[in-house]
Amino acid sequence: MNAALPTVDKPPSRSIWNLLIGRPLRSSDASQEQITPVEGLSALSLDALTSVAYGPEAIIVVLALAGASALHLILPITLAIIALLTILVVSYRQVIDAYPGGGGAYAVSRANLGAGASLLAGGSLIVDYTLTVAVSIAAGVGSLTSAFPSLTSLTVPMCLAILGVITLLNLRGLGASARAFLLPTLLFIVGLLAIIVVGLIHPLGRHHAQPGHSLLSTHSLQAVSVLLILKAFSAGCSALTGVEAIANGVPLFKAPRAVRAKRTEVLLGSILGVMLLGLAVLGERWHVGPRSGQTVLSQIMGMAVGRHWAYFAVSLTITIVLSLAANTSFGGLPILTSLLARDNYLPHFFGLRDDRQVFGNGIWVLAILSAGLLIAVGGNTISMIPLFAIGVFTGFTLSQSGLVVHWWRTRPERWRYRAVVNGLGAVVTLLATVIFLITKFQAGAWVVVVAIPAFIVLFARIHAYYHRSAQEIGAGAVPGPPVARPSLVIVPVNNVSTITQHAIAEALSLGGDVVALYVSLDYPDRDQHESAEIEALWRAWHPGPPLEVLHTEFASVVGPIVEYIDRARAKGDRQIVVLIPVVEPRRLRYRLLHNHIDLVLSAALRKRTDVVVARVRVPIEARRRSG
Amino acid sequence: MNAALPTVDKPPSRSIWNLLIGRPLRSSDASQEQITPVEGLSALSLDALTSVAYGPEAIIVVLALAGASALHLILPITLAIIALLTILVVSYRQVIDAYPGGGGAYAVSRANLGAGASLLAGGSLIVDYTLTVAVSIAAGVGSLTSAFPSLTSLTVPMCLAILGVITLLNLRGLGASARAFLLPTLLFIVGLLAIIVVGLIHPLGRHHAQPGHSLLSTHSLQAVSVLLILKAFSAGCSALTGVEAIANGVPLFKAPRAVRAKRTEVLLGSILGVMLLGLAVLGERWHVGPRSGQTVLSQIMGMAVGRHWAYFAVSLTITIVLSLAANTSFGGLPILTSLLARDNYLPHFFGLRDDRQVFGNGIWVLAILSAGLLIAVGGNTISMIPLFAIGVFTGFTLSQSGLVVHWWRTRPERWRYRAVVNGLGAVVTLLATVIFLITKFQAGAWVVVVAIPAFIVLFARIHAYYHRSAQEIGAGAVPGPPVARPSLVIVPVNNVSTITQHAIAEALSLGGDVVALYVSLDYPDRDQHESAEIEALWRAWHPGPPLEVLHTEFASVVGPIVEYIDRARAKGDRQIVVLIPVVEPRRLRYRLLHNHIDLVLSAALRKRTDVVVARVRVPIEARRRSG
Repeated sequence: MNAALPTVDKPPSRSIWNLLIGRPLRSSDASQEQITPVEGLSALSLDALTSVAYGPEAIIVVLALAGASALHLILPITLAIIALLTILVVSYRQVIDAYPGGGGAYAVSRANLGAGASLLAGGSLIVDYTLTVAVSIAAGVGSLTSAFPSLTSLTVPMCLAILGVITLLNLRGLGASARAFLLPTLLFIVGLLAIIVVGLIHPLGRHHAQPGHSLLSTHSLQAVSVLLILKAFSAGCSALTGVEAIANGVPLFKAPRAVRAKRTEVLLGSILGVMLLGLAVLGERWHVGPRSGQTVLSQIMGMAVGRHWAYFAVSLTITIVLSLAANTSFGGLPILTSLLARDNYLPHFFGLRDDRQVFGNGIWVLAILSAGLLIAVGGNTISMIPLFAIGVFTGFTLSQSGLVVHWWRTRPERWRYRAVVNGLGAVVTLLATVIFLITKFQAGAWVVVVAIPAFIVLFARIHAYYHRSAQEIGAGAVPGPPVARPSLVIVPVNNVSTITQHAIAEALSLGGDVVALYVSLDYPDRDQHESAEIEALWRAWHPGPPLEVLHTEFASVVGPIVEYIDRARAKGDRQIVVLIPVVEPRRLRYRLLHNHIDLVLSAALRKRTDVVVARVRVPIEARRRSG
Repeated sequence: MNAALPTVDKPPSRSIWNLLIGRPLRSSDASQEQITPVEGLSALSLDALTSVAYGPEAIIVVLALAGASALHLILPITLAIIALLTILVVSYRQVIDAYPGGGGAYAVSRANLGAGASLLAGGSLIVDYTLTVAVSIAAGVGSLTSAFPSLTSLTVPMCLAILGVITLLNLRGLGASARAFLLPTLLFIVGLLAIIVVGLIHPLGRHHAQPGHSLLSTHSLQAVSVLLILKAFSAGCSALTGVEAIANGVPLFKAPRAVRAKRTEVLLGSILGVMLLGLAVLGERWHVGPRSGQTVLSQIMGMAVGRHWAYFAVSLTITIVLSLAANTSFGGLPILTSLLARDNYLPHFFGLRDDRQVFGNGIWVLAILSAGLLIAVGGNTISMIPLFAIGVFTGFTLSQSGLVVHWWRTRPERWRYRAVVNGLGAVVTLLATVIFLITKFQAGAWVVVVAIPAFIVLFARIHAYYHRSAQEIGAGAVPGPPVARPSLVIVPVNNVSTITQHAIAEALSLGGDVVALYVSLDYPDRDQHESAEIEALWRAWHPGPPLEVLHTEFASVVGPIVEYIDRARAKGDRQIVVLIPVVEPRRLRYRLLHNHIDLVLSAALRKRTDVVVARVRVPIEARRRSG
């Protein structure tokens, strides 16, 4: 490496945008935080914990279809979900052991199951991250409108505003500030557990939730069938999304990382399980059904403590933590897309960092996808539930089966036991995925069934293109020697002025032959005094290079120039350089007043790749005289 | 002129667009038609003749405000309008004498009243042309929906579809095909006159118009005041718009041009006067009031002949000729904007002809402005009437007063008589303009009062800018000699491949010193193996020019390159050329997969006008293997 190597530090500034986003960061400034298990709850588990805001509701909405009598089924179904949660927690503790470097479904399946499975994981995760953002924000706004029904008409704008703030924070690189999330997370956990305890103490629920009217069907619309129970179970599994996040984020923990991460996983599992169970008991005891304008969680809270300060405080906290849960996806998707880009499955620009050292393109894509989804469903959480969880559970299955292969290959101590645990996780989550697909297919799951393969095809096609083009350009191999040729510099001119002087001077600086071209648009009823005039001026100036006047009866100035260039190319002996003078006025709006031959000509020359197209910008001040 | 001058004939093609628009035309192909007085009616008078579709209606809408008793005033008001028409016809015959080359308000006032008045004329005419297009199309669709009420909900889409067809025809250059318009014009004149005659023969009107309900107020809302009469008069003056078009188009006529044009003017005046009078008599006799869903003209036609084939045939003809009337403005505005551009009052691109030899930019601007207007008023003719006629009558006044000055300056035979006639025209139209402004100001005329001065300010500012920039670049003067400097060619590279080989070869062809730059994005926790690798490859290749590696901790690749360029510029001894290799894939969509440093870097160098920015496009095929 050269000792006198220039190191450049000051990047260009971007004014207003920089005010919002902050000044550019050095890579050494953007260090990763080191967190404890409790901080891990706020940084990595909000997605899972906040599922209580929509999981029980999703179950009740399905059960209510079969009438009030079916509502008691919430308890056994929740117990089944908690059993699945336990299996997942134990399985993911083993993922942490096996991949202390962060074991996302993409990385695990790439290492153990091959490229195909990793692409399935990649597609599922993109769908999953997008849905997590949209569902969390919609549920957060749902909590707010349950508490303040007058805000209901603003649902979609509020969703988009929250999304906008989260996007900006992440573009600034503040998305992963675990410590800032700690207080609302603890408030949420303590507040909700307290409400559940108060609710359990008052055996009959003194208070009644006010807004909305019951959506419970008065007569039995549907017999309580196995299919209904499976539907309710699969809807409720949306409460398990996010359980994998801790295993993906192991490198964020303080040493000993794996130990702390495993402790966080247990903590998460316990709290989530207790919350789900408590809500199910209360929901069953009070026969909570779906109501318009009020979420199930809000009803239970209102019944437990009344619509007083505690209710409003916890409702607001839920909105905040759900927004923060959406934020977690912004930590995940941009890293995933950068990995996919590095492996040539997505355009390389997903692997570029912004001035703030974040993967800005991934952040933008996630923001746009989830904004589109929120607008499409009108900010309604329940209508996204059928799409949700399929992507997540596909990821679960791939991770767990990847781990089975991993244990079988590496065979550490107790590998058989470990393989069985992960194998159980894989089988159970696969079963759950199949149940989702069957029960929710018509309700919207088909969207996911179409989207994930579409992503896989996209990944594969991009990969194939990169492979072909790398072969063609011989990247990494030593190419042949560069062969220089004499050059011919062609300068289109439309008058004789200081702009022409500027352009001819720079053309002469390039060396080689220089020729100026003037296109004369001829009309049958008009004499060509303009071209005669410019020829006379050129003779008077005699700058050195000759002026060639091209006559045409067509209206296009560019046509004759391209024709001239093509004839010069046909001779094949010289490197053609087209030097286009471009007036650069002080203000951008004055650009409209100058001609745009540069745009049209360079577009016309786009496919003539043997021609070098150069622009000479000539500044024009043209200031107004003061006074 | 050089004897071996290359004449270039084949312009580049543009595929799909060309199918719609036609192949490029030579200037000699686009000759102007030579027309007779009857053809002149269809080519230049449709705007005026078709005013009968909205002029009488505009009067009745105003009168109806004062109740049924006021409706008999339509006859005296129409007589006043016909008197004004007579004055205008006589005056414009004199305009034809004075300006056989085509006497548009802009040209006449520029020649006789100075630049200020000509800008007023220019602004008024732009407003006028836009309104003519919108009002004619809206009235044409109104005629159609009166005949076929089920189409009412499609009003705006139908307006835009007609506008789209007219725009395309004009972009093809077929807008001025007078002969194609002859048949519908004659059908319209004969059909409408026949209906009027039939109506006059049946003294009580046997038939009744069916759709819509009467909008006539049952009790007198407003006393019949002078103000009401003035309002009705000014609304009815919209029937006089377009009377000036023949005088503007004198060069289109066969010789003796002035004679034929004057004959057309009289023909137009007579037919228009008879139609207006006939409709007024019928309207008064049958107490026709405004009805929802049916135009006044449609009611009169329905009452005269019943809703039978004659009614439907003439309704359809009216739709067609109103669309053709809108087409006339497309002949006017693009020529006006090209004149304004030639005089440096509008951006020069308005003076450029398209491949089809039409002023495409003017056509597009007119299409966009009138589409916006049609959408804004929902295709409702009556709501545009208050805006209409002000621009036209301002033009009338300016033309007529310009003519007075013209006669006074040139003093031909009988110049006093001629000056008095035009003076009378000027005074009467000025009076009418003042009446419009007073009576319609609040109803929407203020829009025009704001728009016209805004155009004038725009013209003046553009003119001032062109003046200043022409002075600065010394256009038309002989500049100093061009001074060549040795050059330094800087090539940003991101790998060693055939693309790099290509770029370095073209850089060496440019002569001067060449240096390749590689930017290494350094991370504290990562070794710089990539930059070491590329340096090793470069040494193995040894293409001649040195490779400089720029290290940065920031995320921007462009920042260090610009910094390097700035340091090279600071030395000031060499012409800096930045040669950016750009991968040009076979299909445009693959561009997304290659990096975009060319866009970012050339944007960053935009203000560094002493740097020549050149692109080297390197084609990549990367075809899929078949099989």
